[in-house]
Amino acid sequence: MIIVTKRGVTQDELDHIRERVEALGLRTHVSQGEHRTLIGCVGDEERLQSVSLLSIPGVEAVHAVMKPYKLASREFAADPTRIPLGGVQVGGQEVIVIAGPCSVEGGDMLLRTARAVGAAGARALRGGAFKPRTSPYSFRGMGEEGLEMLAAVRAETGLPIVTEVMDTRQVELVASYADVLQIGARNMQNYSLLTEVGRLRRPILLKRGMSATIEDLLLAAEYIMSQGNPNVILCERGIRTFGTATRNTFDLAAIPVLKKETHLPVLADPSHAGGRRDLVAPLSYAAIAAGADGLIIEVHPEPESAASDGDQSLDFDEFASLMSTLRPFVAAAGRTLAS
Amino acid sequence: MIIVTKRGVTQDELDHIRERVEALGLRTHVSQGEHRTLIGCVGDEERLQSVSLLSIPGVEAVHAVMKPYKLASREFAADPTRIPLGGVQVGGQEVIVIAGPCSVEGGDMLLRTARAVGAAGARALRGGAFKPRTSPYSFRGMGEEGLEMLAAVRAETGLPIVTEVMDTRQVELVASYADVLQIGARNMQNYSLLTEVGRLRRPILLKRGMSATIEDLLLAAEYIMSQGNPNVILCERGIRTFGTATRNTFDLAAIPVLKKETHLPVLADPSHAGGRRDLVAPLSYAAIAAGADGLIIEVHPEPESAASDGDQSLDFDEFASLMSTLRPFVAAAGRTLAS
Amino acid sequence: MIIVTKRGVTQDELDHIRERVEALGLRTHVSQGEHRTLIGCVGDEERLQSVSLLSIPGVEAVHAVMKPYKLASREFAADPTRIPLGGVQVGGQEVIVIAGPCSVEGGDMLLRTARAVGAAGARALRGGAFKPRTSPYSFRGMGEEGLEMLAAVRAETGLPIVTEVMDTRQVELVASYADVLQIGARNMQNYSLLTEVGRLRRPILLKRGMSATIEDLLLAAEYIMSQGNPNVILCERGIRTFGTATRNTFDLAAIPVLKKETHLPVLADPSHAGGRRDLVAPLSYAAIAAGADGLIIEVHPEPESAASDGDQSLDFDEFASLMSTLRPFVAAAGRTLAS
Amino acid sequence: MIIVTKRGVTQDELDHIRERVEALGLRTHVSQGEHRTLIGCVGDEERLQSVSLLSIPGVEAVHAVMKPYKLASREFAADPTRIPLGGVQVGGQEVIVIAGPCSVEGGDMLLRTARAVGAAGARALRGGAFKPRTSPYSFRGMGEEGLEMLAAVRAETGLPIVTEVMDTRQVELVASYADVLQIGARNMQNYSLLTEVGRLRRPILLKRGMSATIEDLLLAAEYIMSQGNPNVILCERGIRTFGTATRNTFDLAAIPVLKKETHLPVLADPSHAGGRRDLVAPLSYAAIAAGADGLIIEVHPEPESAASDGDQSLDFDEFASLMSTLRPFVAAAGRTLAS
Repeated sequence: MIIVTKRGVTQDELDHIRERVEALGLRTHVSQGEHRTLIGCVGDEERLQSVSLLSIPGVEAVHAVMKPYKLASREFAADPTRIPLGGVQVGGQEVIVIAGPCSVEGGDMLLRTARAVGAAGARALRGGAFKPRTSPYSFRGMGEEGLEMLAAVRAETGLPIVTEVMDTRQVELVASYADVLQIGARNMQNYSLLTEVGRLRRPILLKRGMSATIEDLLLAAEYIMSQGNPNVILCERGIRTFGTATRNTFDLAAIPVLKKETHLPVLADPSHAGGRRDLVAPLSYAAIAAGADGLIIEVHPEPESAASDGDQSLDFDEFASLMSTLRPFVAAAGRTLAS
Repeated sequence: MIIVTKRGVTQDELDHIRERVEALGLRTHVSQGEHRTLIGCVGDEERLQSVSLLSIPGVEAVHAVMKPYKLASREFAADPTRIPLGGVQVGGQEVIVIAGPCSVEGGDMLLRTARAVGAAGARALRGGAFKPRTSPYSFRGMGEEGLEMLAAVRAETGLPIVTEVMDTRQVELVASYADVLQIGARNMQNYSLLTEVGRLRRPILLKRGMSATIEDLLLAAEYIMSQGNPNVILCERGIRTFGTATRNTFDLAAIPVLKKETHLPVLADPSHAGGRRDLVAPLSYAAIAAGADGLIIEVHPEPESAASDGDQSLDFDEFASLMSTLRPFVAAAGRTLAS
Repeated sequence: MIIVTKRGVTQDELDHIRERVEALGLRTHVSQGEHRTLIGCVGDEERLQSVSLLSIPGVEAVHAVMKPYKLASREFAADPTRIPLGGVQVGGQEVIVIAGPCSVEGGDMLLRTARAVGAAGARALRGGAFKPRTSPYSFRGMGEEGLEMLAAVRAETGLPIVTEVMDTRQVELVASYADVLQIGARNMQNYSLLTEVGRLRRPILLKRGMSATIEDLLLAAEYIMSQGNPNVILCERGIRTFGTATRNTFDLAAIPVLKKETHLPVLADPSHAGGRRDLVAPLSYAAIAAGADGLIIEVHPEPESAASDGDQSLDFDEFASLMSTLRPFVAAAGRTLAS
Repeated sequence: MIIVTKRGVTQDELDHIRERVEALGLRTHVSQGEHRTLIGCVGDEERLQSVSLLSIPGVEAVHAVMKPYKLASREFAADPTRIPLGGVQVGGQEVIVIAGPCSVEGGDMLLRTARAVGAAGARALRGGAFKPRTSPYSFRGMGEEGLEMLAAVRAETGLPIVTEVMDTRQVELVASYADVLQIGARNMQNYSLLTEVGRLRRPILLKRGMSATIEDLLLAAEYIMSQGNPNVILCERGIRTFGTATRNTFDLAAIPVLKKETHLPVLADPSHAGGRRDLVAPLSYAAIAAGADGLIIEVHPEPESAASDGDQSLDFDEFASLMSTLRPFVAAAGRTLAS
């Protein structure tokens, strides 16, 4: 932590600032400049969180030096975390594609979709049973019945299932069905939920919130990890900006930034990022080119009739075509497509 | 709903679009232009949510005409909603100020703060027992013990209490203590939580999410109201933008926009919006000038030692000074300051 | 400047970093921490701009301590800058209102508008002769003919005129007519234009760019001032964010932040900030409450027929009504309304 | 254009709205709904720009149907525009890489850089002689002397040169040296400058502004094209958002969106988008994967000593390495790398 003092700070103020910091067990180094004085604080920076440094008279600004996350940081683990799923190591050399409908709408559509995406090379099935919807009047999912359908389709096809959990009270239930529990963008800072899924050992797919910085996302992962669950898969799915041409703004650079900052696997969700069916392919290619460990893609037997997110869902043919055109980009990235 | 078709749409495509819409019980009106055809859809627009119009061949764009919220809309209720709190009607002629520490840190500091803010004119006490914190390593509140302290201080001072609920499992507990339950910005789209507090009749203070549009905020209110709880108080607390001079960007215009769009009361939170102690006063004046029904302000006996948000907390003298300088702005707005 | 080194930085790297900094005449102070080393650089920080510190091996981050602007900074001038205009000191105790049409559309409409706004208390007339328009097919102003009309109306009414300059080649021409030259939001970082108007001594009304930070705005002012023109009036007019309810997002907090950071006067433009006629009044009240030195407001004889910005223009009655309801807010702010 | 009327609009108001629209030569179609009436306006939508529809009593909202740009639109030209540069067709099957220093700092460094980037496969040389800098105290380029150095290096190496023009008064001078004139992000809405370069026939590299929407960018291109210059090359270089991990937020999806909306070539600038040397490669791969027609990349002999943008400049080895690792992504995109 570096403290910058106000112009004209008095010696008494300087002494008081140093006392507050040193009382917490850190050492201070003072650099006198012409107009400003800098106080470098060396030691366990976390302890400084218990003081409101900016409220101390004479303090103008405070610069953090340490990253506020630990378990999620690249420094904590030299090797990338690899999370087994459907015979693939997510975060390993292989690129994984997870696909399926936005919402589980019935057993038949789910099974047909699972077979189609599995045949095309997807290694896991996505599908929401509990759906966060902006309007209370929209379809909000089939609930436990949807989970049962997911389990039945897994039994039939062998595809592991990825499904969302929205409520601390559902964690146990969802965990009894799902291979991966998804935390949606709107719940990325639902700390009770993060804490609860942190008590599991099941992999958690954590989607970036619409206005979350990279640091916010890694702190959300830290919530889960600090409870004992190291199996966190991050997912870039677009952020909210002034742009209107796409549903969200796909923050592609977040992928290589995350790969440097953390040892956790990083997926991309081109369906939500663009919100447009015609953008799924180019965004998928780009995500892989930028180093993503995999993709999660919405596929529906008949997008026009989808209960949710039809605008951004691929049909079976489009998905199969995507998988085949994706392959050379995976190879260019020096990886292989799990299938 | 107005559907804009693609250039070169065929008659078959047009017929198919109209069929899909009319099958849902709406009527269609076709306007043929030179390059585009418009299809006006008249009737219960909500039913169109079950179709992905953009996925239908020939559709280029869709323009919604109806607002997606109803109960929260100005059209639903001619008169402003007034919610009794501490002898004031929130949303009425009087302006209310709610004040207190960010977090409950102990019984003594809470009582001292309550007495100080009450003496200066605050009509309700805020204070968090369950704290959403960006880092899992930060102080996360005293939990039920904090709620007990709040209740004890209410008994002592007569000030009603406003406190946050973060988890569906805590709703009953928090409701057994709180006069107003607060939903924080990070939980504004925690739909399970909104649904749960919708089952209460206790007032809910709903803070705008960091990247929530006005429509998103009103849809979150709609979640609560559609469960039967009409007592929703909205709160503008700043949004996330590219700006760095302030913690958030105070979207002042949201106040008059909300006053036009909805009958619900609208408060402002100048502490979080600016994130700086020196901005609390000007932002408070401006919020009242723009039509806010009240303010919620962080006050701490010794901001320098606050367990959270010390940078933006006023001390007792600053708060008393704010209350007296606020008065002429309240009068200029044609209102009175409850006290 | 504080340099934070990478974990595992070598002594050679440290030596090289210090050499580079010291070669520029600054002194360095090294603070060794457990994981990171801090190097405080004391002296003329500006010289460090000639080195790309982040490119030096071993450097992880760089924190600037000094503000990059000088002449515009509060530290440069203890007293607020006051700029005479129409018998008022902009930046003084009085609040000034500048009003008029978006574009000059003709001599008659301009004269009528000038008389109406003057009678209601405006102290200067705005009106564009050169108009920056998003589309090349929109009305782009009457050019020099418009300037002549402005001058004629000034002669008739005594109101000084504020008008935009868009091109370095027009500066001399516009300066031969205008009392204040306006630099529009889209040209806030047109550095050639800033440099050119810096050679004048005429006041410059500098509008904040749509994505300009406070620092960017003050650096734009610095461009003008560093050429010798100290008469810069800043103007907050809304920034671009994800919000859609208003044309721009009025960054109200920028007003008190600027009043602290700089000695220059600060106006607000509620017409562009909200982009809606019904928001002009509440945004005006709020701007004054937050400490603005004045307002610039669009007024048109018949907004429905305005060649530009009709959606946000007040008619004469609305403007007169605004001026009278504004008065108590001006008084609450401890100021008087020039008139 | 679709006009949505207010609830309770009167027949007189409806008639007045229709009259205003029909007076401009458009036809109207009225769709009566339960709560709202829609008025579809069919004909030359552009003429409606001369009326402020939102100011007409009874109007609630207006939805544009036609795109406001024409010459730049995909509908205007069936075939992609191809612009010859250095033996390549920009916008054709080949992918072009333009590289060079941010600023021209001297003849020797420029020649060395040109030789290095040319040897690695770049087909044009970039380098700024006139530099837009946020601070007036930063290095602002060598001016005409820099242009002469660029021309000398072109003569020596055969590489065509791309260089920025910032001022209408410099257009003729810069055009007398440059093969491509660059309009920087901060000048994207400097309409005088756009108009001036529109009078040339030399290719213009138009960079997207920091807060420009896709529509804003295409309207800026339209300014140039409407003056008669069809040779516009667009460039995505990152937008300003709340993100802090990168200098700007690379809006990758803008690339495929632009390829659909316009026939003009689209480049990407990974150096400015990320602002970090270590992100140039992944962003380059991704841009090509998403369909970009080429890249513009900052390269410097010794980034640590660069007069500007050293943090994001590659050295010669890094650039050569990028070019060779880029090749498989170009092939995966079904294209070839010009060289």
